[in-house]
Amino acid sequence: MNTKHTPYNLHPDRLFSSDTKEREISKLLYNSVKSLPIVSPHGHTDPRWFADNDNFSNATELLIIPDHYVFRMLYSQGIGLEQLGIRRVDGSSAEVDFLQVWKVFAQHYYLFHGTPSRIWMDYVFCEVFGFSVELNAENAEFFYHKINAALATDAFRPRALLQQFNIELLATTEGATNCLTHHKKIKQDGLNNTVITTFRPDDVIDPQVKGFSRNIEVLGELTNEDTHNWQGYLHALRQRREFFRAHGATATDHGHATALTADLSSLECQRLFEKIISKTASSEEQELFRAQMLTEMAGMSLEDGMVLQLHPGVHRNHNTSVFQTFGADKGCDIPVNIEYVNSLKPLLSKYGNETKLRFILFTLDESNYTRELAPLAGHYPCLKLGPAWWFNDSPEGMLRFRHQVTETAGFYNTVGFNDDTRAFLSIPARHDVARRIDCRFLAKLVAEHRLSETAAFELARDLSYRLAKEAYQAADF
Amino acid sequence: MNTKHTPYNLHPDRLFSSDTKEREISKLLYNSVKSLPIVSPHGHTDPRWFADNDNFSNATELLIIPDHYVFRMLYSQGIGLEQLGIRRVDGSSAEVDFLQVWKVFAQHYYLFHGTPSRIWMDYVFCEVFGFSVELNAENAEFFYHKINAALATDAFRPRALLQQFNIELLATTEGATNCLTHHKKIKQDGLNNTVITTFRPDDVIDPQVKGFSRNIEVLGELTNEDTHNWQGYLHALRQRREFFRAHGATATDHGHATALTADLSSLECQRLFEKIISKTASSEEQELFRAQMLTEMAGMSLEDGMVLQLHPGVHRNHNTSVFQTFGADKGCDIPVNIEYVNSLKPLLSKYGNETKLRFILFTLDESNYTRELAPLAGHYPCLKLGPAWWFNDSPEGMLRFRHQVTETAGFYNTVGFNDDTRAFLSIPARHDVARRIDCRFLAKLVAEHRLSETAAFELARDLSYRLAKEAYQAADF
Amino acid sequence: MNTKHTPYNLHPDRLFSSDTKEREISKLLYNSVKSLPIVSPHGHTDPRWFADNDNFSNATELLIIPDHYVFRMLYSQGIGLEQLGIRRVDGSSAEVDFLQVWKVFAQHYYLFHGTPSRIWMDYVFCEVFGFSVELNAENAEFFYHKINAALATDAFRPRALLQQFNIELLATTEGATNCLTHHKKIKQDGLNNTVITTFRPDDVIDPQVKGFSRNIEVLGELTNEDTHNWQGYLHALRQRREFFRAHGATATDHGHATALTADLSSLECQRLFEKIISKTASSEEQELFRAQMLTEMAGMSLEDGMVLQLHPGVHRNHNTSVFQTFGADKGCDIPVNIEYVNSLKPLLSKYGNETKLRFILFTLDESNYTRELAPLAGHYPCLKLGPAWWFNDSPEGMLRFRHQVTETAGFYNTVGFNDDTRAFLSIPARHDVARRIDCRFLAKLVAEHRLSETAAFELARDLSYRLAKEAYQAADF
Repeated sequence: MNTKHTPYNLHPDRLFSSDTKEREISKLLYNSVKSLPIVSPHGHTDPRWFADNDNFSNATELLIIPDHYVFRMLYSQGIGLEQLGIRRVDGSSAEVDFLQVWKVFAQHYYLFHGTPSRIWMDYVFCEVFGFSVELNAENAEFFYHKINAALATDAFRPRALLQQFNIELLATTEGATNCLTHHKKIKQDGLNNTVITTFRPDDVIDPQVKGFSRNIEVLGELTNEDTHNWQGYLHALRQRREFFRAHGATATDHGHATALTADLSSLECQRLFEKIISKTASSEEQELFRAQMLTEMAGMSLEDGMVLQLHPGVHRNHNTSVFQTFGADKGCDIPVNIEYVNSLKPLLSKYGNETKLRFILFTLDESNYTRELAPLAGHYPCLKLGPAWWFNDSPEGMLRFRHQVTETAGFYNTVGFNDDTRAFLSIPARHDVARRIDCRFLAKLVAEHRLSETAAFELARDLSYRLAKEAYQAADF
Repeated sequence: MNTKHTPYNLHPDRLFSSDTKEREISKLLYNSVKSLPIVSPHGHTDPRWFADNDNFSNATELLIIPDHYVFRMLYSQGIGLEQLGIRRVDGSSAEVDFLQVWKVFAQHYYLFHGTPSRIWMDYVFCEVFGFSVELNAENAEFFYHKINAALATDAFRPRALLQQFNIELLATTEGATNCLTHHKKIKQDGLNNTVITTFRPDDVIDPQVKGFSRNIEVLGELTNEDTHNWQGYLHALRQRREFFRAHGATATDHGHATALTADLSSLECQRLFEKIISKTASSEEQELFRAQMLTEMAGMSLEDGMVLQLHPGVHRNHNTSVFQTFGADKGCDIPVNIEYVNSLKPLLSKYGNETKLRFILFTLDESNYTRELAPLAGHYPCLKLGPAWWFNDSPEGMLRFRHQVTETAGFYNTVGFNDDTRAFLSIPARHDVARRIDCRFLAKLVAEHRLSETAAFELARDLSYRLAKEAYQAADF
Repeated sequence: MNTKHTPYNLHPDRLFSSDTKEREISKLLYNSVKSLPIVSPHGHTDPRWFADNDNFSNATELLIIPDHYVFRMLYSQGIGLEQLGIRRVDGSSAEVDFLQVWKVFAQHYYLFHGTPSRIWMDYVFCEVFGFSVELNAENAEFFYHKINAALATDAFRPRALLQQFNIELLATTEGATNCLTHHKKIKQDGLNNTVITTFRPDDVIDPQVKGFSRNIEVLGELTNEDTHNWQGYLHALRQRREFFRAHGATATDHGHATALTADLSSLECQRLFEKIISKTASSEEQELFRAQMLTEMAGMSLEDGMVLQLHPGVHRNHNTSVFQTFGADKGCDIPVNIEYVNSLKPLLSKYGNETKLRFILFTLDESNYTRELAPLAGHYPCLKLGPAWWFNDSPEGMLRFRHQVTETAGFYNTVGFNDDTRAFLSIPARHDVARRIDCRFLAKLVAEHRLSETAAFELARDLSYRLAKEAYQAADF
């Protein structure tokens, strides 16, 4: 890899404090963990890539079109989504000129100054594709063709990249009715680097999801259960969890609007479920159903050992017009204020003291870190805190997370890093940022005599590698 | 200007990080922008000053009595407002001994340690009046007379100060029924440095404002429209916007209690307006009316190109007794928790994707920065974030703003600095603080290899000067 | 004290910034205040210790079992409370093997990396007991026996420790019906170092407290008042306040769930009280009663000069199962989102402008610092801000407090440090942390030329010592 003309942003000391003492310790810590394998226990890459192992098509389709971090910023500055190659849901989109999209991106690359997208992208350009200059309007075409040429080689096929990136474990996320064909093929091919799935049953749990009724039927067909009956529905979910576990899953994931949980009696559950199925439930009852189902999922996790992840508090598809024209995941999801303490109480009253349950909480509302999440995780045996999420998966966001969470929850009620990405090529970049920032935080504690060097080296390894494996019960892979 | 005995707080490196590397870069960046003209696109100075160009009276009436930052702190420590020369609304106040008020201020100057008021005031003393020692109880009288002597000279007349301060643009703020006499005179006199107005229609939009009914009548008289009729009312507002634009206005400003917006049908609007006009509206309906009017204002902005500013979330005149005795703007306004995501949805659903609309959001609830505001501004084309506002217009507040906003909204969804002040003499001080802090933030990114030096120099200029002009459409002045 | 092999965490420069300039100033400031006497105006030590002056029993009973910071972290990692020697409320607990508990703690000492508990505990080991190595699984028994041996000596009796710790004032906290026997004995014995009580009437004010009815009866018996009658109840409270003042109390303290206050008419109060006493009040009425009582307490404070403290916003005993089995204060209290601006308005409208009232506000919801608390304290004469509380009584928490509060409230609307602890041996450690962090914050301001060195030295003394005495009206002791 050409590092003769390392661009500024790939400086070997990037993201460390400029304080000499902190920087020196950061470097020592980072050097001890930078080559550790990547454990990616929660993310959204496409399993088809690893099943089929086809070459990626071109820079734009790989790096721009699927990355809502990238096109939301461009859109915010007045560049239309069609200009960026985003397809309409009605199929009426014009032919996309991928080179032209790339040029628009390059021309506006300055918009990303100070953002994590810029850091990840520069890493990909430099470390993955060997560029030694910054992308700009003038060299856009050069970048485009050089990237495309690389993508056409065997060394850039998905499985080769898994190896090159030193990825020990990569989890994707699939809906409850997914057939897991790609994961089956991955398994059959005996892939060295493990690609596993995650059970994400929102589509059959959230009555407000489009196509919910049809999903319930499919769930019944797949499991041969009567999913219009409360017990049958639960049995069907249990079966699907088993099916997912057989394809490697160690965790479930839930994208509820709030952290609300409930603990209804069996009779109340049945009656509520009947309303849900017959489409007579009010929106409050729909929320109550999701709340109850989170508790049901916790109960099933206790039975089958799957880790329970909750990613709440996002107003999805806030921009109605963009959603209607271009569909979901188009950069229009906006975090909202949420609360955990009262919301989680029903579930925690039932299962909170179970030492065998692992319940990982995420938030986009950072005001919860010190007020609710660290105190909860610093008490309940089942709770752990997921890393800084989404908009907070950034140098500043990660630093705030450690600064605000550590004193009350400690390090060992956190679970290492999640890249949570669909941008496959950015995975090493994201883990690199996380490792650098964690080492920076530990270095600060050492430099201020709040932590011994010995402990810092152990923690650096734990935060970079061990805690993720342990928290997601991936220790035996 | 005497700088032989520069006081500590006018140290040339003040407000920069004490880290050598960051400080050196900060200085280079700051030196490149410190002499740029001041663009002050949002503030509350008195246009009469610039129209009449009379000398200011004395230090107390200029620097203490109008500055609620100053007297709220003194009041919080048990000093009565009358002791500070604040007049009762009933006109019963005793004669004010301005020198005595000044002495009380000087005696308690230590209360301002660590506050932005102290930074601004020290700058005024040192840079504007040439003092080289700190104000204290002993030298209070010396300060008072020296300031008064300066104020009596031609060099300290308002228009001379505009030039001395290198103010390229200064916007004041006037109510919808204001005759803009002073602005007319300013224009007629062909003032080199532009002083423009801003359209602030709260008085004719918020039914809870004292004198609302009378204001609606005056609005009708000024525009020859039937303002008791929904369409007439809207026409009247359009006319007043045009009138303000003719006096230089490029923006409107709205001080609503919340960020609530609405998108009612024309019929619903008419019915709601009838209730408002007939004083039969409930407080919920009054809130709904304000919400609808924000959307109407956005629609008019799209027609006439005026920038829409929203400054929500303040509990005004929280101290009832002080309000009743001394009136509004007496340091009794307290921020409250607010939310933007759901509140703004009706307006954003209607106009959010308009690239011609410029909607600038402010907040005093910093928990919104990462949770709501940066994600919203990083997506919607019409949205930009105003700078750290009011209590947060301070070194720490500005740093938090950049640290929390930049990673998701970038720099280019922000609009440069607003001094937002009625304290005319502090304007250079405030812009100086903003430039120093922005340069400090950029220097940190450079020192940590997160931004190139080249980009930092360009951004320093953008944040200090260019973005304010562009955001407030002041580029052609 | 053996400092030959000072452990890393007792480094003389610990908790200061690693920036050379800031560190040097921090050291100068800290050296000027480190030996000042300790004023501890709010805490929860057991007055019996100082009355009886018996030796403490052993390391586990003194340092582990009463410290919910310690056992909540261990519990969060799956260690049962019984394993930690916590007794069941039903008395069914097995014999505790104190050495074994100590070993479990030592074995898991790494869980406290980065937490304040670790900092306090290391200080106690090193500075109080003279250890020069870190506690670990291997040396656990050595620590245990050495600590126990020390505890058996006269030098480690409670009163000797008060002197050794240089504690000038120590306030405990007792319920309204407490007989203050221990405080009486302390007074009779003419203790040099003052131990006083604090009036905490939650037990007779909060109808949701267990045993409330019985408490009201006892209140009547103690005061010979008819406490089932509103006026009698108020008289009884006045009497108890007087009784507490006679035992040194200068302050009251209130642990309400929210900051709600009310200002009902006398007739409304009577009617509400009748419902409370007859147990027919709804939970809203119970909340209203607490709200009204806060205003009543403010009125009495104005009469008798006692400082009013409010510690709101905690969901107590969130873990129902732990609460039922092991009782209160077992690490299951979780902060919740609260608001102050509207909640406090009734009380502030009545008494907010009284310069003789001292009302000290605390929070666990840090999003209130800049939004509500600093602006309120920077205006109302009666209000002061208590220091960073509970989970925020930590290096990072204290730094956030100063960074977020100072610019709007200044230093002089804060009240110095409260250790707020029941862990007697950690008191010097906690004050040491507070002094170091305040000096660090001041040093940063000096190094960035935002504060003069002269002012910093004065402020260091004020924050470490003077403000606490003044705020709690302890200046005359």
